[in-house]
Amino acid sequence: MKKVAVILSGCGVYDGAEIHESVLTLLHLELQHASYQCFAPDVTQHHVINHLTGEEMTEQRNVLVEAARIARGAIKPLTELVATDFDALVLPGGFGAAKNLSDFALQGAGATVLPELKRCIQAFAAADKPVGFICIAPALIPLIYPQPVSLTIGTDTDTAAALESLGAQHVQCQVQDIVVDHQAKVVSTPAYMLAQSVAEANSGIKKLIAALLELA
Amino acid sequence: MKKVAVILSGCGVYDGAEIHESVLTLLHLELQHASYQCFAPDVTQHHVINHLTGEEMTEQRNVLVEAARIARGAIKPLTELVATDFDALVLPGGFGAAKNLSDFALQGAGATVLPELKRCIQAFAAADKPVGFICIAPALIPLIYPQPVSLTIGTDTDTAAALESLGAQHVQCQVQDIVVDHQAKVVSTPAYMLAQSVAEANSGIKKLIAALLELA
Repeated sequence: MKKVAVILSGCGVYDGAEIHESVLTLLHLELQHASYQCFAPDVTQHHVINHLTGEEMTEQRNVLVEAARIARGAIKPLTELVATDFDALVLPGGFGAAKNLSDFALQGAGATVLPELKRCIQAFAAADKPVGFICIAPALIPLIYPQPVSLTIGTDTDTAAALESLGAQHVQCQVQDIVVDHQAKVVSTPAYMLAQSVAEANSGIKKLIAALLELA
Repeated sequence: MKKVAVILSGCGVYDGAEIHESVLTLLHLELQHASYQCFAPDVTQHHVINHLTGEEMTEQRNVLVEAARIARGAIKPLTELVATDFDALVLPGGFGAAKNLSDFALQGAGATVLPELKRCIQAFAAADKPVGFICIAPALIPLIYPQPVSLTIGTDTDTAAALESLGAQHVQCQVQDIVVDHQAKVVSTPAYMLAQSVAEANSGIKKLIAALLELA
């Protein structure tokens, strides 16, 4: 049974991990006979968004504590993630990937990645282990991998241009499909960058997990 | 296309709606060609649990605002739910059903149900429309339906006894299965009352949605 690490970035599309994408990731790992362990950085969220109104709230929340909601408590701090313990890694999307794991939502092409996350993903890449990036999470790829990587964030031209300016090779991709860079062992799918429904997100994520496990 | 109302009770197994069950409910409604609208009561959560430690936190959160995380913002206050607009209703589980929608987790057989929720479910029952209850949500059934209803919360004997003392007919049921009361048009499945994995919860919820839509 292949072992996969899942990195969450909070709990909720606007300030954390996209919930549907996270649950579908766990579901398809299980249905495709892999085991998994969730991780999240023990850091304060960039901010807290009221998901009913879209407005910022005045409170503070912790990424690991909120991500524990998706993981039903079975989650570890990202500092405990060791690449040698796993065959593959996957990052669901949501603004948490672009606000908590990196500052791509704020800085675009000038963004930086949380150092402990960068070290983790570099360790998987160095060990020739595959990593899956869902939704906006592929924005992290050119900030981490030294070589140009083929990836997709769907069809959004502004985001694609920002990633290409960082050296990525952006490939237009529909919601039910994936882009695989066999050299870098990187798989990506647009999910809620394009999805209009849970079922649409489900179709691409199911395919991403299959490709990830095949590369592992 | 059948229209289904989904009532959420927050966002997180220990103080709100169980996230996996909620997402799987939405997924299977879509995959089985139904449309849905999410609702939640606009009330303060009973409490907030740190899902990493299991301990109570000092802050306050609103059930509707937190449930909006699962619904990606597409949610309405429960006061706007009108039974005539829908063909069926479904309630995912999580402690929110027993702490926010009712006080069953605290009062057991002496529990009461949030009045606006009771009115909603009674309206579906009066219109002979089916209602699905997942995980611990079936605990609400004998507090709402006047007649004895066949239901399951899995195999937990203490919880089953409390529900039987209220007049329910508890049926032992495994995680991948459902209990249907054709007279009352009530369907229930244990999900995370028994599930050891997302895939196990998925199997029962998929079957519950199929039965619900067949009754609708």
